[in-house]
Amino acid sequence: MPSKSVYWFGDGRADGNAGMKDLLGGKGAGVAEMTNAGIPVPPGFTITTEVCTRFYENGRRFPKDAEPEQWAALARVEKSTGMGFGDPQNPLLVSVRSGAKFSMPGMMDTILNLGLNDQTVEGHARRANNPRFAWDCYRRLIQMYSNVVLDVEKEQFEKVLRAKKEARGSKADTDLTVEDLKGLVEAFKGAVKEHSGHEFPQDVKAQLRGARDAVFRSWNNERAIAYRRMYRIPDSIGTAVTVQSMVFGNTGPKSATGVGFTRDPATGERKFYGEFLTNAQGEDVVAGIRTPRPIAELENEMPAAYRQLKEITARLEKHYRDVQDFEFTIQDEKLYMLQTRSGKRTGHAAVKIAVDMVKEKLITPKEAVGRVEPAMIEQLLHPVFDPLRRREFPAVAKGLNASPGAAAGKAVFDAPTAVAWKDRGERVVLLRAETCPDDIKGMAAAKGVLTSTGGRTSHAAVVGRQMGRPSVVGCTAVVVDEEHRRATVDGKVIKEGDYVSIDGTTGEVMIGDVPTRDSDILEVMRRNLDPSKSETWQNFAALMKWADGLRRLKVRANADIPRDAEAAVALGAEGIGLCRTEHMFFAPDRLPIVQEMIMAGDEAGRRAALERLVGFQRDDFYGLFKTMAGRPVTIRTLDPPLHEFLPRREELMVEIAEMNARGQKGPELTRKETLLARVEQLHEFNPMLGLRGCRLGILYPEITEMQARAIFEAACRCAKEKKPVVPEVMIPLVGHVNELKHQAALVRRVADEVMKKEGVKVKYLVGTMIEVPRAALTAAEVAGEAEFFSFGTNDLTQMTFGYSRDDAGKFLPLYVSEKTKILPDDPFVTIDKAGVGQLVRMSVENGRSVRADLKCGICGEHGGEPETVIFCHDTGLNYVSCSPYRVPVARLAAAHAVLREDARRGEARKPATKKGKRMAGTRR
Amino acid sequence: MPSKSVYWFGDGRADGNAGMKDLLGGKGAGVAEMTNAGIPVPPGFTITTEVCTRFYENGRRFPKDAEPEQWAALARVEKSTGMGFGDPQNPLLVSVRSGAKFSMPGMMDTILNLGLNDQTVEGHARRANNPRFAWDCYRRLIQMYSNVVLDVEKEQFEKVLRAKKEARGSKADTDLTVEDLKGLVEAFKGAVKEHSGHEFPQDVKAQLRGARDAVFRSWNNERAIAYRRMYRIPDSIGTAVTVQSMVFGNTGPKSATGVGFTRDPATGERKFYGEFLTNAQGEDVVAGIRTPRPIAELENEMPAAYRQLKEITARLEKHYRDVQDFEFTIQDEKLYMLQTRSGKRTGHAAVKIAVDMVKEKLITPKEAVGRVEPAMIEQLLHPVFDPLRRREFPAVAKGLNASPGAAAGKAVFDAPTAVAWKDRGERVVLLRAETCPDDIKGMAAAKGVLTSTGGRTSHAAVVGRQMGRPSVVGCTAVVVDEEHRRATVDGKVIKEGDYVSIDGTTGEVMIGDVPTRDSDILEVMRRNLDPSKSETWQNFAALMKWADGLRRLKVRANADIPRDAEAAVALGAEGIGLCRTEHMFFAPDRLPIVQEMIMAGDEAGRRAALERLVGFQRDDFYGLFKTMAGRPVTIRTLDPPLHEFLPRREELMVEIAEMNARGQKGPELTRKETLLARVEQLHEFNPMLGLRGCRLGILYPEITEMQARAIFEAACRCAKEKKPVVPEVMIPLVGHVNELKHQAALVRRVADEVMKKEGVKVKYLVGTMIEVPRAALTAAEVAGEAEFFSFGTNDLTQMTFGYSRDDAGKFLPLYVSEKTKILPDDPFVTIDKAGVGQLVRMSVENGRSVRADLKCGICGEHGGEPETVIFCHDTGLNYVSCSPYRVPVARLAAAHAVLREDARRGEARKPATKKGKRMAGTRR
Repeated sequence: MPSKSVYWFGDGRADGNAGMKDLLGGKGAGVAEMTNAGIPVPPGFTITTEVCTRFYENGRRFPKDAEPEQWAALARVEKSTGMGFGDPQNPLLVSVRSGAKFSMPGMMDTILNLGLNDQTVEGHARRANNPRFAWDCYRRLIQMYSNVVLDVEKEQFEKVLRAKKEARGSKADTDLTVEDLKGLVEAFKGAVKEHSGHEFPQDVKAQLRGARDAVFRSWNNERAIAYRRMYRIPDSIGTAVTVQSMVFGNTGPKSATGVGFTRDPATGERKFYGEFLTNAQGEDVVAGIRTPRPIAELENEMPAAYRQLKEITARLEKHYRDVQDFEFTIQDEKLYMLQTRSGKRTGHAAVKIAVDMVKEKLITPKEAVGRVEPAMIEQLLHPVFDPLRRREFPAVAKGLNASPGAAAGKAVFDAPTAVAWKDRGERVVLLRAETCPDDIKGMAAAKGVLTSTGGRTSHAAVVGRQMGRPSVVGCTAVVVDEEHRRATVDGKVIKEGDYVSIDGTTGEVMIGDVPTRDSDILEVMRRNLDPSKSETWQNFAALMKWADGLRRLKVRANADIPRDAEAAVALGAEGIGLCRTEHMFFAPDRLPIVQEMIMAGDEAGRRAALERLVGFQRDDFYGLFKTMAGRPVTIRTLDPPLHEFLPRREELMVEIAEMNARGQKGPELTRKETLLARVEQLHEFNPMLGLRGCRLGILYPEITEMQARAIFEAACRCAKEKKPVVPEVMIPLVGHVNELKHQAALVRRVADEVMKKEGVKVKYLVGTMIEVPRAALTAAEVAGEAEFFSFGTNDLTQMTFGYSRDDAGKFLPLYVSEKTKILPDDPFVTIDKAGVGQLVRMSVENGRSVRADLKCGICGEHGGEPETVIFCHDTGLNYVSCSPYRVPVARLAAAHAVLREDARRGEARKPATKKGKRMAGTRR
Repeated sequence: MPSKSVYWFGDGRADGNAGMKDLLGGKGAGVAEMTNAGIPVPPGFTITTEVCTRFYENGRRFPKDAEPEQWAALARVEKSTGMGFGDPQNPLLVSVRSGAKFSMPGMMDTILNLGLNDQTVEGHARRANNPRFAWDCYRRLIQMYSNVVLDVEKEQFEKVLRAKKEARGSKADTDLTVEDLKGLVEAFKGAVKEHSGHEFPQDVKAQLRGARDAVFRSWNNERAIAYRRMYRIPDSIGTAVTVQSMVFGNTGPKSATGVGFTRDPATGERKFYGEFLTNAQGEDVVAGIRTPRPIAELENEMPAAYRQLKEITARLEKHYRDVQDFEFTIQDEKLYMLQTRSGKRTGHAAVKIAVDMVKEKLITPKEAVGRVEPAMIEQLLHPVFDPLRRREFPAVAKGLNASPGAAAGKAVFDAPTAVAWKDRGERVVLLRAETCPDDIKGMAAAKGVLTSTGGRTSHAAVVGRQMGRPSVVGCTAVVVDEEHRRATVDGKVIKEGDYVSIDGTTGEVMIGDVPTRDSDILEVMRRNLDPSKSETWQNFAALMKWADGLRRLKVRANADIPRDAEAAVALGAEGIGLCRTEHMFFAPDRLPIVQEMIMAGDEAGRRAALERLVGFQRDDFYGLFKTMAGRPVTIRTLDPPLHEFLPRREELMVEIAEMNARGQKGPELTRKETLLARVEQLHEFNPMLGLRGCRLGILYPEITEMQARAIFEAACRCAKEKKPVVPEVMIPLVGHVNELKHQAALVRRVADEVMKKEGVKVKYLVGTMIEVPRAALTAAEVAGEAEFFSFGTNDLTQMTFGYSRDDAGKFLPLYVSEKTKILPDDPFVTIDKAGVGQLVRMSVENGRSVRADLKCGICGEHGGEPETVIFCHDTGLNYVSCSPYRVPVARLAAAHAVLREDARRGEARKPATKKGKRMAGTRR
């Protein structure tokens, strides 16, 4: 037995309510709720999403058994309005609209004015006493219906319309007379016949059936599928169809139509916000043909309707306890509400609204946390383009939006120039084909980074996010010619010193200096302003505090230097989850010593060089420990392959070949040849899978020894100074428990030696990164040795998928594209739950079966991605660690994980169907 | 309650038997069994391996409760021999020997002549009427005891002995008089005191305790641990200690001692085989100071003892139903058997002995299969060095024994020279720093391959095994200078044309032309000889047939061309498990077309080139199908990254730089620049994890299309010619089921098209390689699409461990070394059961939960490694696939898997202790 297919609303009563979005879609549930609350809504009915499912199961045909229900509901609309569908004297006109559970604005089809034909148009004209209006409605119906249902291109009608206007010498549609419109209708009908082979149906029931089925079909049009993919809306939920009696904002000067928000969706300010047009239909407001007027002006034109609108929308906001985005129509001074829904808003607005509503006692702090999408909070942290000025600069290219935020400055093409220009007070944007560790200082000096190659996890992207530098990467349209210090894009040349602006939030590239400004939050942090003076900071802090009260997952930051650690602490980090010691090796005062160590032919030579590095490292760690003031600091021993610290092999080969070809000789050639010989020794076909991580520390134990000494000397110094300190030494790239045993024994021995010498005791942990699949598969063994696991999901993803993240740009875009749909998401952005996630789950379970108190965290790029944070919470991890600027996102996402958990529990307790709470308000 | 610690043997009765090796060790069980069979064995007792375990649990101290049992047993030896331990008149002398379950020759300690001291030596002398003999025994005891128990270096005694001999002007030990020996004893006692700080114990009970404990301790000496590691003997099983009354082969001319085999251990020939010395102790035979005489000569000297020895050893062979390796002593014409055990033998001997014993009805065919270690069978296939001539050529270096067999020829340093010299009738050995696909023809032309870099799974090693070419790789001591066509090793220069010999079985490299010959099996196969004329072939075939009768696991071969397929079939392959289509792309008539395809800028250009390749591929597949005559043929679609088909990037860069530096211009420069531009586009940081496998087929579907067309056109041609054909199309590098869906749909579409066009139907399968961890983790999903799984354990190992097999040579040798003991085995040789094996198990289980008849096989390098084959059997795979020359190994290993399974079942059914079967023979 099929369940009820059609839900009525009208006459102050509705079958549905706001809780039934699954079945009635957002729109259907919204009008039902409003109807029940006594708000004036034109009557109608909603055909459920279940019917949509059956429509597809039935080979894209409307289920026969639902037809009678539909016509019965239509009869009830006729009764309620006193009009008849197809009645030549008093014709009922209806709209047919799509509406899924989640709003998908503009993605599916809508048809208005159904019920008009050659007969009813006359009755419509008589009734409105406005033939021009009626024939305009009719020609719009033919246009819309034939496009949506019969697949006639819009352009065909535009052509006819243009011809008609040219013939009349008129410019605007409104110049057309009734006779013109009648002629247009005939011409349109001819175009329909010509291009579809079908007549425009005069049978109004056929119109309704055709429109209804077309809306169901539009669920699977290309743009709807793409939208669902982007917003992770399941394909299976389907759309509802709402059939509603038409009201008209275009019957004359005492009619109007408009849209509005109960608060400002850009700033969150509590003010009545919207636009309207008199004598217009809804599409006119959206289409931008006429300029809508601010909603405040409606008060002068139609004071009663305006007051009623304000009163109703205020009630709606209170009822839904959220900002409402509403549509209304005034027909002959009578107000109808057509739609209401939660309004989309910017990150800034979301935070302000949520905090304000708590102050207004409209929502609880817990609900406020749920109102702000974790990813949105990041918008509060990144520099922003001045939105008004941005319009002056068209985008010339679009790359991957790797690190959000706005940046503008003079184009530079290498790191030294970036540093030099910045030092002389210039703002610069660094343009490179790709970046490498040598470019780090340049990236730090630049306002933003633009690369023509590389993906979202390329060096430029990772470091950009780490530093909070807006970055656009993989922007292939920009051809960077580093040698000649210029780039070309779209036929234009960007020379060194030309202004370039990039929007890391959208991936757009503009030529010119688009004005930007620091976000309020950053201003407070960076300029040490008084936070109590910044409302944004106050709201941000309040929301974060509520989130912290909810979440159980701890949030740490990945930071290598005290400055990053300070930012992380300011943004709420509870520890450092990953300090990459090799970043300390790239500093200009250390790199030559590191290179000396690598070039040394034996252990003694290496030890001599390491002896000169240990002081640097000790001071680095001391600085970090001091900044973190007793919060745990996880330090990873040396990880990258050694050749990363030496010049590039190909460059040396070419330089030597050139010198030889020119017959050049001398010590410089010898030096380069010696260097190349070592680089060749270290060369690897797949460095990602080569001599790095703990393999280095096992081959050259003296390196791990030096690092352990630096860590424990720094920790002992803190201890002597009575500064609390909690070092956690992390061994990377472990695949077999014996590797960890080897390195852990070494670290513990050095720790003992240093503590004995210094005469203080420091508590510390030794653990491992789980980033090699084999470590995850043998987690029970590894946990026997490890006091903590930290999931290095970057490498774990690389090895589990067999994707090199440096090379995956060649096929990953195709894989996540609509064309192949091989992968639902880029696995370097959102953790792959089925594969990588399964390894994480296995590791946690098996690890804790051996060591119940095993501390588990994640320190890969995924650590700041909301869906991954929620996965980490659900998997029972203790913490996530992410770049400092993503810490607030992770804190909020961790709170959302608790909210989702609560919702799941509530769902489990709830009976199968549930009556929605009735809206407050008097019934009329 | 500790169980019985001491097991008696003597007077024709023993507590133990041959079935108790676990508890009594091989030696203890052997003497017990012999004693029970009435064979003359000097009486004694065995302290069990359980006591050894308790010894270690007890902090390396002998368990107190076992002492009384031991002394009681000693008393019984005194009674049986009529002598007294420590009795000055008639002293009992005993030996103390180690003996674990598995023979570990020479690894642990043994002490003879215990019971001698300053008093008993006189009684011993009187009783033997031979003071010289008695004092020689005593000085040997002091030497041996002090070395083993008190850690005095052997050299200390040698020094004293040398001084004594010099003082006497004598050369041999036998020149020393009784007085000399008495002086030596005193000097030895002084040396003991000086170097150990202890006196040599005069208390004979202390001697026995000291010797016994030292034997237990020797279980964990370095060489014993290393030996166990090499032969995979568990550390936990411990050694037994056998205390046995001494008999002496050195009491005079009517005494003797010797060792022997019941059949020739080198050839398997059935003849009494051994050596003896009169008037000598066992160690003299082994030490090589005197030259032992052939055992046949014993018949003349002591005919009764000889007859008895022949009769007893024949009986032993019959009883143990295996070749016996025995030790005996004749004291004053009375024969004593000291030891018997199964004799170690070569592969050739193992096969002959097993088959002969079946003919002799001594063992069943099933037992015969169990008698030949799978790896040994390979010795029958590879060329062999003439063992006598080999001694003339000392090894100058040792590399990794990558592909077994012997090869000798003139050194060449590039592939074209190898081909040219071979064509003019020379034998050549190819020396390269490393090999690449360009070298394949050269490798095929060479007798053997020697590289200075690369591991056991390097290109040279893999291809060497595939081709059955003896190969030594990673031989760093040989510095290959390809440019100047020479190599240096150990200060010597090998020029082009100099003779070099390599032993792929041992990894040794010799300068010079060591004579080799084809094995009999290969001679039969390669020269199409009449197999019935070759006894080796007959024996080999018989054994293989019995193995085939036992095994359930199928064996296929990896083969790309008909010649390899023919060899595979001749060696028993039941199908092709992996045909690598890219190998067909490297042929000189195709490579230019492949390069054209890669250089094409668009799909149309690629299709044009592919159109010219399809005919080649179709003919290739047709040839394979025909050769395999209805056996399944698994064809993998294109796998390697495209840049492997183009010149090397660095070479192009250097060439262009040189041309530019010299100011050269012209079309050649332009051509190289164009080539480099494409090579740069294709360049990858980690090609192993880059654009290859199905990723290529998804990006360029036209490649998969062409290959599918070639496969099905060839298959249809076979079908039309009524030749049976079973193609299995395998999609490589799948990580997500959607990749397989994409490629499988394409293959099936092309198959339909071709079959429709050709008008015939061919049954085929589409499946995937499981080589990416994610595919294994999501095997249930993948099995929804795949009709078979083939485990590509090379790549699966690379990704699961995060080891690039091209680069792992930098650390893997350290990892498997004694120094770090990180890994028990090279995971590219023996499958890693805990990690990679876990993924294989998961895949099979989860895959079959979705598709019960899912065919599962393995096609990685591991497919021919016996332990892996057994793992595959245990995991329920349907087949293994390996290089043609390893097919017999795999067949035998698959049979062994069944034997092990039966043994486990038998073990499970067996009661906790079991009485061994009594040996046939009359009791005396």
